[in-house]
Amino acid sequence: MFTITFLGTSASVPTVDRGMPSLAVKYGGELMLWDCGEGTQRQLMRYRAGFGSIDAIFITHPHLDHFLGMFGLLETLKLSSVSPKPLTLVTSQKFDAQNYPFVKQTKMRKGKIHSGNGFEISAFPVKHCRGSYGIIFREEDKLKFYEEKAHSLGLKGRMFQEIQKKGKVEAGGRTVRLEDVTWTRPGRKVVYTGDSAPDENTASAAQGADLLIHEGTFDASMEDEARERQHSTVEDAAVIAKKAKVKKLIITHISPRYSDSSMLLKQAQEIFNNTIIASDGLTVEI
Amino acid sequence: MFTITFLGTSASVPTVDRGMPSLAVKYGGELMLWDCGEGTQRQLMRYRAGFGSIDAIFITHPHLDHFLGMFGLLETLKLSSVSPKPLTLVTSQKFDAQNYPFVKQTKMRKGKIHSGNGFEISAFPVKHCRGSYGIIFREEDKLKFYEEKAHSLGLKGRMFQEIQKKGKVEAGGRTVRLEDVTWTRPGRKVVYTGDSAPDENTASAAQGADLLIHEGTFDASMEDEARERQHSTVEDAAVIAKKAKVKKLIITHISPRYSDSSMLLKQAQEIFNNTIIASDGLTVEI
Repeated sequence: MFTITFLGTSASVPTVDRGMPSLAVKYGGELMLWDCGEGTQRQLMRYRAGFGSIDAIFITHPHLDHFLGMFGLLETLKLSSVSPKPLTLVTSQKFDAQNYPFVKQTKMRKGKIHSGNGFEISAFPVKHCRGSYGIIFREEDKLKFYEEKAHSLGLKGRMFQEIQKKGKVEAGGRTVRLEDVTWTRPGRKVVYTGDSAPDENTASAAQGADLLIHEGTFDASMEDEARERQHSTVEDAAVIAKKAKVKKLIITHISPRYSDSSMLLKQAQEIFNNTIIASDGLTVEI
Repeated sequence: MFTITFLGTSASVPTVDRGMPSLAVKYGGELMLWDCGEGTQRQLMRYRAGFGSIDAIFITHPHLDHFLGMFGLLETLKLSSVSPKPLTLVTSQKFDAQNYPFVKQTKMRKGKIHSGNGFEISAFPVKHCRGSYGIIFREEDKLKFYEEKAHSLGLKGRMFQEIQKKGKVEAGGRTVRLEDVTWTRPGRKVVYTGDSAPDENTASAAQGADLLIHEGTFDASMEDEARERQHSTVEDAAVIAKKAKVKKLIITHISPRYSDSSMLLKQAQEIFNNTIIASDGLTVEI
């Protein structure tokens, strides 16, 4: 299972419909939060996104609206178990977590920052405030067998393990090489910008990604305000998605001024068609 | 107008239905928050309780679940105006509010802590953690005229001001005394415990109150746990309400374990009939 649930999709200030930024990312048995704005613990419950089993929290940048919910969540985890399971916290500013001995802190920085079961997480700097990073989820490539071909060449049983270990195996009186009976399924890739002005780093990080989650705080007419505040318009997000040739774009971090997102969608889709404007509770399977 | 809206009614941890503790208290043109748990700013929007016009915030005790929402709210107030209106913040622990120059801090302590237009707020210590206080809202007594009697004695026009100023006035050839034509309408009183074990201080503070808002974290069968954690059962709350002869009791701060509050209501009403178990969004006129 590889799903992403948008727990909060508002920018700076919540609305009745949009909570503060947070994404719940589930892969295999692991659950991560990307950002953790005020109210995230309640959104986790509301959208049944696996409350209480969080393995890691990544805070993209040190702005209050992206991390305040962490304190309530950590307190709840502490209250709800005598020994909460270890939780990795990745931030660019170290937090005083002495009350939460189950928290293991890691510095948010460029490059690989975390590895899970079958995937790794790395980060890349983006233009916003000091210590702002985008996040790359990269699934490991998987070796897949052409099963019919392998069987026809005489492979069976433990030979499948052996050929993977040694690169070749003797079968039906001849040598079968691994590359003759397998292909590589490239790992899936998802990139999340956090808050960011349009940034070439994102375009490179997201090359060919299955999904780009890009902030789009403003509509296209507010480009000046977007530049001034180091945010993106929905058009900016779409331009990056197109440049990076991603499969799908989801735009989040929507300014509270837009109670209806249809204009935002239209503007983005004129540039990059496979776009969704996120709403709270949206869950996508990758 | 004198209304109280229950913005969040859960204890320690939110649920899908109950947010973290906060009450919006409106009197005349003023709006106060009593406690300000995580997510309060969003609850203020959801229940249209006057977001953005807050005059004062009172934090009953320094536990995170009662004050975390303050930070998000202050940040939002700062973002939404070049010069936010002054806000009084009453806490038993001083906060670093240097980023919020519109905040004026006052220490939560026994006695009078705040006065508004036609009312004052005082506090009394309660048994919970260090620095835990209950809050008393007391409306000023109002002088009311027996209008028919006053007119029959010849009072008219500016004489009504004069008699209030001097205690008497000449009318129709004789002296009319203030006490002959007026009565005193006692100010309304509302008391809120914050988190508290059952406490005689509450019973005294709430004597004859129009409304007692008492925490009731647990049902009656969990008295031992309530004692251990310095909380109250719903029966404890009802016993205090009865002892204080209040007009109405509202029980809030409900443990997340109770998804249905009918048992809680039944237990409390066996002791004090005019009881409500609060739910998020409940608004009462005093």
